[in-house]
Amino acid sequence: MKPVRVGICGLGTVGGGTFNVLTRNAEDIARRAGRPIVIEQVGHRSIHPDCDITGIKATSDVFEVAANPDVDVIVELIGGYDTARELVLAAIENGKHVVTANKALIAVHGNEIFQAAHEKGVIVAFEAAVAGGIPVIKALREGLGANRIEWVAGIINGTGNYILTHMRDEGRAFEDVLAEAQALGYAEADPTFDVEGIDAAHKLTIMASIAYGVPLQFDKAYTEGISRITGEDVDQADNLGYVIKHLGIAKRTENGLELRVHPTLIPKDRLLANVHGVKNAIAVMGDAVGPTLYYGAGAGAEPTASAVVADILDVARDINTAHHYRVPYLAFSGVGEDMNAPAIMPMEDITTAYYLRLLAVDRPGVLARVATILSDNGISIEALIQKEITEGELVPIILMTHRTKERQMNDAIREIESMADIAGAVTRIRVESLDEGE
Amino acid sequence: MKPVRVGICGLGTVGGGTFNVLTRNAEDIARRAGRPIVIEQVGHRSIHPDCDITGIKATSDVFEVAANPDVDVIVELIGGYDTARELVLAAIENGKHVVTANKALIAVHGNEIFQAAHEKGVIVAFEAAVAGGIPVIKALREGLGANRIEWVAGIINGTGNYILTHMRDEGRAFEDVLAEAQALGYAEADPTFDVEGIDAAHKLTIMASIAYGVPLQFDKAYTEGISRITGEDVDQADNLGYVIKHLGIAKRTENGLELRVHPTLIPKDRLLANVHGVKNAIAVMGDAVGPTLYYGAGAGAEPTASAVVADILDVARDINTAHHYRVPYLAFSGVGEDMNAPAIMPMEDITTAYYLRLLAVDRPGVLARVATILSDNGISIEALIQKEITEGELVPIILMTHRTKERQMNDAIREIESMADIAGAVTRIRVESLDEGE
Repeated sequence: MKPVRVGICGLGTVGGGTFNVLTRNAEDIARRAGRPIVIEQVGHRSIHPDCDITGIKATSDVFEVAANPDVDVIVELIGGYDTARELVLAAIENGKHVVTANKALIAVHGNEIFQAAHEKGVIVAFEAAVAGGIPVIKALREGLGANRIEWVAGIINGTGNYILTHMRDEGRAFEDVLAEAQALGYAEADPTFDVEGIDAAHKLTIMASIAYGVPLQFDKAYTEGISRITGEDVDQADNLGYVIKHLGIAKRTENGLELRVHPTLIPKDRLLANVHGVKNAIAVMGDAVGPTLYYGAGAGAEPTASAVVADILDVARDINTAHHYRVPYLAFSGVGEDMNAPAIMPMEDITTAYYLRLLAVDRPGVLARVATILSDNGISIEALIQKEITEGELVPIILMTHRTKERQMNDAIREIESMADIAGAVTRIRVESLDEGE
Repeated sequence: MKPVRVGICGLGTVGGGTFNVLTRNAEDIARRAGRPIVIEQVGHRSIHPDCDITGIKATSDVFEVAANPDVDVIVELIGGYDTARELVLAAIENGKHVVTANKALIAVHGNEIFQAAHEKGVIVAFEAAVAGGIPVIKALREGLGANRIEWVAGIINGTGNYILTHMRDEGRAFEDVLAEAQALGYAEADPTFDVEGIDAAHKLTIMASIAYGVPLQFDKAYTEGISRITGEDVDQADNLGYVIKHLGIAKRTENGLELRVHPTLIPKDRLLANVHGVKNAIAVMGDAVGPTLYYGAGAGAEPTASAVVADILDVARDINTAHHYRVPYLAFSGVGEDMNAPAIMPMEDITTAYYLRLLAVDRPGVLARVATILSDNGISIEALIQKEITEGELVPIILMTHRTKERQMNDAIREIESMADIAGAVTRIRVESLDEGE
């Protein structure tokens, strides 16, 4: 059968990896696709040192690849928002299928891109945009297609998980582990994108759209980072039987969809709690299948290339399929047209349990006052630890609450912080049981 | 668009679950498929009590469903080998697509069935045949399509994992937990199929074919059960930092493919070691993606239905696709025609590490003699525990070896068992590191 001709734009880490995997495993890939996948052209400014493109047609202008009539599929691996958006839209305009690993592009410009692609009848595939090599987009979009998804909860940023893992295992401070992660190349010089949850929110936004058949709404995702987690919190969580993970959570409730990224206490015996270092994992609860989990490398040259090439294989198989028979971009047909589609809830309306840590002056009645404030706001306490004082007069109080509305918790925290006997801000970390069943 | 018309054969646990999921989630499923999926007819002898088929065309003759010109897809959920084989072949002969949850059927008769289906240009889908609701067939066949698979290792029998989990957590004996599992309905009255690894070998056979592009060869799978595992072994494994799991392992080596089901010691910190109770999980190592893992319910009405319905969705999308564009049944085109396809190795040729437990008379020189026998057979010892004697004169000796050939280990065990100072048989459990990376 006729080969499928690929144009790779960008030959950095992921582009180089994609080039190498397509080349190294060409024979197996052709047997899987039923036809050869050939690299027709590459567009790049610089080349990853592991990548040898001898004999391949190359250009420094990626738009030339998007216009090349001999290219069937554009693989966008240049990253970023603006040029990537222009490139993808140009490729679509030229009737080419698109494979991309760009989570920011899809989360922010996905609705526009899918609309354009739908009009042209071309595929836009983005498995590599979420959790690197883990085929979780395929699982959510196809493998779990029988289910109403109840919730999705994922460790979807390797940098953050690396930091939290080493804070816990080695009793080190956030800044200390972050510096190490930067030295090892697991974290960027400016780590904001990773540790403040923006990258995770991009990925969560994409998964939520696929899970629930709603348009991409990155601007409505709640995002909170891990930079304020202390060793004290890690230890207290451990004492209470929990581990702190930076989770992206999407949940269907009767009031709408929760869409939130924040540090989370989860029970130690959950599989997610045992996902260490830079690895990613996503737990998905479906009404028919129950709890499931997908684990693997969330970044890196070849893991991400694994997902890019899987998408190219899908394109190769679907290239002659009538467009309306293909899997819809966001899993459901008519996304954006469904008037009954659930809305994304404001953070104040979500319901969860909480871990609170506060510093109190050791004076009779302080604890009673805190308990009264919580009670007055309709919040019940599940566990309370008042630590013995080792020195000074401030006593750490650790509380776990039952599930309550975020708004009530905000009110309670405001009141508690206004108490004269409470020092500084209350630390609040959300708690999820993530019942995975036995 | 035109509905896809399904004929469900068998309305037991999985058939009833499939009926209910298709009915309950019909609206979402239609949006995913781009068209309605309608149940045209059911063929059944008895009906699961949870299933209400009022208003559905029914027959007690499943072959009538296979001949019904209004049925596009036959869903075979009657189980067993002979009638199921006849039914599936009749449906194919009538030009119908087939979805089945029958692992025994695919593992034993799959080559014949796929040949017939290929000639007729129809789909045979079997996601539900392996690990229930976990979409691992899709992951192996599509999501990891870029990779050369290095190994697959799975907990793919819930009954066995339930027994091993409770033996470990509660210090109970195999027979005791088995009786409980039978009372709870997790184990059959005759548990041979589950606890002796036959069911796992069916599923492993299917995964190996898809991972490596080789024909189904159930008769070449090595199968060893868990009925001889003792509480002593569970405790000793724990002391050494391991957990005993009943694994199905397929591995590519330079000498061919390993295909084996047996109790296995794996390090405690592996995710697989933390898969408890009746749940299943499959770890897959790819050359590009690295380690990945897929977890969920391996059995049960609705988890299995989840996979069956996902297959129906795939059929609905591919129903008008030219046959050569569809994903090949066993992932690769030309399975069975590839003269260079790796052969499945005899068990004596595989390489692994070992845990040995033996009972020795407490006499000087016995340990030295055992060590010499191992050394003479080219086997080196990694760890040795000689337990203190509490009563009587027999001393338990626990050994962990480095990796060696099974043949050498067989020879060594034969020699050790022939020693006058060794009582009874040597317990041998294989050990795998299953490196999942950090």
